[in-house]
Amino acid sequence: MHVTAGARMLEHFFTPSSVAVIGASTNPDKVGHQVLANLLEGGFQGRLYPVNPRAKEILGLRVYPEVTAIEEPVDLAVVVVPAGAVLEVVEQCGEKGIDSAIIISAGFKEAGAEGVERERQLAELARRCGVRIVGPNCLGIIATAGRKGGSPLNASFAPGMPHHGNIALMSQSGALATALIDWSLQQNIGFSKFVSFGNGVDVGVVDLLRAWEDDADTSVIVAYVEGLPDGPEFMQVAKRVARKKPVIIIKSGSTQAGARAVSSHTGSLAGSEQAYTAAFLQSGVIRAHSVEELFDFAVAFAYQGPPKGRQVAVVTNAGGPGIMATDALERAGLHLAAISPETVEGLRGGLPPASNLYNPIDVLGDADAQRYQFAAKLALEDQNVDAMLALLTPQAVTEPKETAEGLAAVAGASQKPVLAAFMGGEAMAEAKRVLAANRVPNYPYPERAAAALSAMADYQQWLQEPEDEIRTIQVDSEAVEAVFAAAREEGRVNLGETEAREVLRAYGFKFPRNKLARTPEEAARAAEEIGFPVVMKIVSPEIMHKSDIGGVRLGIQDPQQAQDVFELMMLRARRFMPDAQLQGVSVQEMVRGGREVIIGTSRDPQFGPVVMFGLGGIYVEVLKDVSFRVAPFGERHARKMIEEIRSAGLLWGARGEQPSDIDAIVESLLAVSQLVTEYPDIVELDINPLKVAEAGAGAVAVDARITITETPPGDPKAPGRPGDG
Amino acid sequence: MHVTAGARMLEHFFTPSSVAVIGASTNPDKVGHQVLANLLEGGFQGRLYPVNPRAKEILGLRVYPEVTAIEEPVDLAVVVVPAGAVLEVVEQCGEKGIDSAIIISAGFKEAGAEGVERERQLAELARRCGVRIVGPNCLGIIATAGRKGGSPLNASFAPGMPHHGNIALMSQSGALATALIDWSLQQNIGFSKFVSFGNGVDVGVVDLLRAWEDDADTSVIVAYVEGLPDGPEFMQVAKRVARKKPVIIIKSGSTQAGARAVSSHTGSLAGSEQAYTAAFLQSGVIRAHSVEELFDFAVAFAYQGPPKGRQVAVVTNAGGPGIMATDALERAGLHLAAISPETVEGLRGGLPPASNLYNPIDVLGDADAQRYQFAAKLALEDQNVDAMLALLTPQAVTEPKETAEGLAAVAGASQKPVLAAFMGGEAMAEAKRVLAANRVPNYPYPERAAAALSAMADYQQWLQEPEDEIRTIQVDSEAVEAVFAAAREEGRVNLGETEAREVLRAYGFKFPRNKLARTPEEAARAAEEIGFPVVMKIVSPEIMHKSDIGGVRLGIQDPQQAQDVFELMMLRARRFMPDAQLQGVSVQEMVRGGREVIIGTSRDPQFGPVVMFGLGGIYVEVLKDVSFRVAPFGERHARKMIEEIRSAGLLWGARGEQPSDIDAIVESLLAVSQLVTEYPDIVELDINPLKVAEAGAGAVAVDARITITETPPGDPKAPGRPGDG
Repeated sequence: MHVTAGARMLEHFFTPSSVAVIGASTNPDKVGHQVLANLLEGGFQGRLYPVNPRAKEILGLRVYPEVTAIEEPVDLAVVVVPAGAVLEVVEQCGEKGIDSAIIISAGFKEAGAEGVERERQLAELARRCGVRIVGPNCLGIIATAGRKGGSPLNASFAPGMPHHGNIALMSQSGALATALIDWSLQQNIGFSKFVSFGNGVDVGVVDLLRAWEDDADTSVIVAYVEGLPDGPEFMQVAKRVARKKPVIIIKSGSTQAGARAVSSHTGSLAGSEQAYTAAFLQSGVIRAHSVEELFDFAVAFAYQGPPKGRQVAVVTNAGGPGIMATDALERAGLHLAAISPETVEGLRGGLPPASNLYNPIDVLGDADAQRYQFAAKLALEDQNVDAMLALLTPQAVTEPKETAEGLAAVAGASQKPVLAAFMGGEAMAEAKRVLAANRVPNYPYPERAAAALSAMADYQQWLQEPEDEIRTIQVDSEAVEAVFAAAREEGRVNLGETEAREVLRAYGFKFPRNKLARTPEEAARAAEEIGFPVVMKIVSPEIMHKSDIGGVRLGIQDPQQAQDVFELMMLRARRFMPDAQLQGVSVQEMVRGGREVIIGTSRDPQFGPVVMFGLGGIYVEVLKDVSFRVAPFGERHARKMIEEIRSAGLLWGARGEQPSDIDAIVESLLAVSQLVTEYPDIVELDINPLKVAEAGAGAVAVDARITITETPPGDPKAPGRPGDG
Repeated sequence: MHVTAGARMLEHFFTPSSVAVIGASTNPDKVGHQVLANLLEGGFQGRLYPVNPRAKEILGLRVYPEVTAIEEPVDLAVVVVPAGAVLEVVEQCGEKGIDSAIIISAGFKEAGAEGVERERQLAELARRCGVRIVGPNCLGIIATAGRKGGSPLNASFAPGMPHHGNIALMSQSGALATALIDWSLQQNIGFSKFVSFGNGVDVGVVDLLRAWEDDADTSVIVAYVEGLPDGPEFMQVAKRVARKKPVIIIKSGSTQAGARAVSSHTGSLAGSEQAYTAAFLQSGVIRAHSVEELFDFAVAFAYQGPPKGRQVAVVTNAGGPGIMATDALERAGLHLAAISPETVEGLRGGLPPASNLYNPIDVLGDADAQRYQFAAKLALEDQNVDAMLALLTPQAVTEPKETAEGLAAVAGASQKPVLAAFMGGEAMAEAKRVLAANRVPNYPYPERAAAALSAMADYQQWLQEPEDEIRTIQVDSEAVEAVFAAAREEGRVNLGETEAREVLRAYGFKFPRNKLARTPEEAARAAEEIGFPVVMKIVSPEIMHKSDIGGVRLGIQDPQQAQDVFELMMLRARRFMPDAQLQGVSVQEMVRGGREVIIGTSRDPQFGPVVMFGLGGIYVEVLKDVSFRVAPFGERHARKMIEEIRSAGLLWGARGEQPSDIDAIVESLLAVSQLVTEYPDIVELDINPLKVAEAGAGAVAVDARITITETPPGDPKAPGRPGDG
């Protein structure tokens, strides 16, 4: 099975018995020296083999001229030779039977056309030789401790060895990782594993997620990424891993300008912001929007379990910070818990009369550690309380260290999460160390604690939601494929309304009654059969925006008008688009009433089909009030797409109107999700509008258009997902 | 003149020649001891008089039994006696001729009904004795240095003396202030003045703004407030002071739950969030949303001048952080500057080939301090660049300290602001000290630097905008007052549509043609005169929501229908509201086309009249797409109100429609602003809808309602603004 294989195959990167440093240097300023020094100083307990044709001994170790000269087996190679020599070295690794290599050397994809070609060759070579690769252009790998009894490993040129902890960190940027490690040392934050994967020619985000999925040393996975090479595979794996442990990701290059910077940096193809947002949401990935947030969240998850709900008790020794915390909690989507009468009575028994016994619980500025602990304990035990935010300011008689100890005892005795904001500098320094040592996350201000707690509550909610089951309805594939084939036969990629109808009908969509008229007389007859008023639309595969050339008319009242409109439309179409193939005019039932919605799809380069939903007209065009999901998705996400738009109230029946048929919209979204998943042929699809009647009365697609690829993708019913399975 | 008087009157709080500490204590654990110790340790160079009837000497100083026993004149009293003794002490201060007192003692407004009464008495007494008061229930006052040659003053029980600097800080919360001072010491942030004003019985935000307006030691004013007692006065003073130096405020208690916590804390009456947002915007006040932001912004403004524009150069020694910075800048409303060809050429001459010469400028991971400085200097000199964000990560050969020195030299030689994000912990510690010493604001991550730079750019933009001139049109005051008087005569506060029309007509509003019909026959006749179709609406001062009882009918087509509708409306009104006074039915011209907008007003307890604008129907009711301003405002803010709503595009002519008459909306907003400013009688006003025709064609108020106060306010044309004189 791929999953287990993936995890097993990365073992040598984290728990090797022996490591060769190829390109080890005698010069202490060289990276090739620093890596070896880090391995030694980091306490690696296995065998170490420096490799360098021009040295005999480095840091007291015997040096080998090349890796093949090492007599014993080698589990891991760290490669620090110049870019031009990397390919040869990897080939030697293959000969030597080394299955894992960290390539620290730069000079690949990030360094122009020559580098791109070199990286392509490296990928090919590695596959051929059976060597898995982390890098190139990376900082290396650190494992603060291997499995029980294992050895620590610092196979990087990071400036220090991070503390031991239960956060596993992967970073696409080596420089950022350096800063993070340096910063984590100051903040007493510990890591289990650390991987800088650089250009990610082989091992990337997905492999590392798999490797850490069941890693007992890791309880939180944190990632800095600039792009994801295989969106669908990422989603599939992330969704599974996130059920086991929180996965927190900061995706850089989100804005338009940021995305440009990504392209020039690592050559990653940045996916659209909407696709990433949807993909993370659908996978249960917790998204951080800054590195500060990334670590604020990571520490919260690493130290405490998520809360069962969103009711928070605030304990404080000052009113002002209590107000700030209240604001911050509400803004973060959390709530002040209603303290139960029993707790209030209990608090009354032990606190001075001027204290506030309700939330935020104010133990007053003259509170000693004991009073603070008394209140914190009662508050946390209250059945209405899911989590606690503990605030402390350094006032005249405050005992920060003892208060931290008391709070740690309270937190340690409870399953509920406790987060702290002990505010101040030197006065709080010792208290902060006590909190960190006791795994109580502490933040400089209540706002950041509230944001972290909110991320935990969101994650818990996601965990409790059932999986979004992807359903598949029976469809008429032959009809769909016939339409595509016919259009391609004629050299067209744009399907006209009639063709789009056939495709959508195969997936269960309904349409207004409709007849194609080829003459004015046919138009009049069709209109009479359908019943007035009718709608008339020009039919031509070349004319995508019919209304722009007067090709759509509503509310036609009698046969004479139908004839006139036919002639006028043909005349206009010939004048404005003389080369267009005119198939006639479609005479349609005029659907009255109902709410207009839009369902559209596009294809994201990293995540594949993305489905958009919004209300018709100005809601999409002016207010940009739309929601997105990566297809395929199930009913749960279809409903969320509808709930997410700001104007959703209109569908539920705002202002005394009838509620719209939400179920019909859900069905339509699911059908589109299935269609674009099964047919990668579809580049774009727009159902605009879908007219939704009142609850129970269904929906009809009034207009639709589809653009397909010029040639059929490899296997139309099973789009290839590299590496997936 | 009040302004100068206000500033002069606070002089003794900051630069006293002599200070009495009333309630000085021999016990080092008592606040009365700590204050005296702080004065001594803080280096106060004037005379110090401890006052305590039961001591002879404290900290080597002679103790006086009461303040009146001191022979020499005393400029400032610091009062630390129990609450019950405060009033007597203040009276003695008055006798002694002391004009300034800091009351640190708690036990006032914040401590129940008895305290509220004590605070009321204190306010009265202080006015009578001519003693200005800071406090009660506060931490005290600190001035790190007086005017040139003056003495530092630490008249507080803060746990440390802050560094000298050019930020003046006021805080309503003493505990938060303690935390901030402690934290500022660690971060090397300096203050000029610090005031904890506690309950603010006398000296408050507005007095301190006035006092610091022309204070040469202060270049940035920073405030933590939970409420503002006099909104209009605050706006007037803040607007003036903000033109001279940045005013940054964090307003706590913004959310609903936060506002409740405020009430229970200091008894402040929290104004609505919308009113605060509008008031700060109109006053040029920079709003921070967390304490972290407050200081991030303060340091940026204290160290650097605001940028002329929003084009930013990013210099970095690593790609990843460059991408993060790009994202952060775009999110914060700033832009990556387009580096000029000359600068690119210059960079090419001095940087290695692999460097990125375009923005973000990447000097590569192996950059030494000199290379970094070379690039930073060229980038900052580029004419397309308004500001610089300098990023550094600690890589193998990075020279953080030297790079900081080089950057400081570049920043010091330029008028353009330079902000830094030197990322890391211990590796960056020395560099951070260098940056702080050279007044280059440094942030742990690019996101926070970008937010600070954005606040600076916003402030600069506000400075460049002309004052929003309040215009006053000539109105028919007699007509308005007659309407109010007549309604009050009948014991009514709700004005019917006809009355509301009269009021609005006096302010220049236009209405559809309209006749009041008292019988079915009159209705038919009126409709014929106006011309079909017409609108009919029931007229009754008691019926505010006419459509709820079927009291509005559109599109009446003939005289018979007009008669029928009249009878039906009367019947329904009698059935649903048997006690309502029915004046008849209003027959109105039916205004076709045009865009419906809403103008509403309410009265905020702290800021007075607040005007709301939005598009009619679902835009207000479902999408809550509205904007607010505190009245009075001028044309500039009227236009901004329109631009701010998300659906503004509809008024400019989205989807090929005619643009609406924006000028007519502006006129209407200004008229309403003038009306509610001149008549505090008006509690609420709704013009819903105002029908706006296409550009140049004006607007008509189709429906309106007004609620007034039961009795006329003091002087209707000049609402009293305490202290604003």
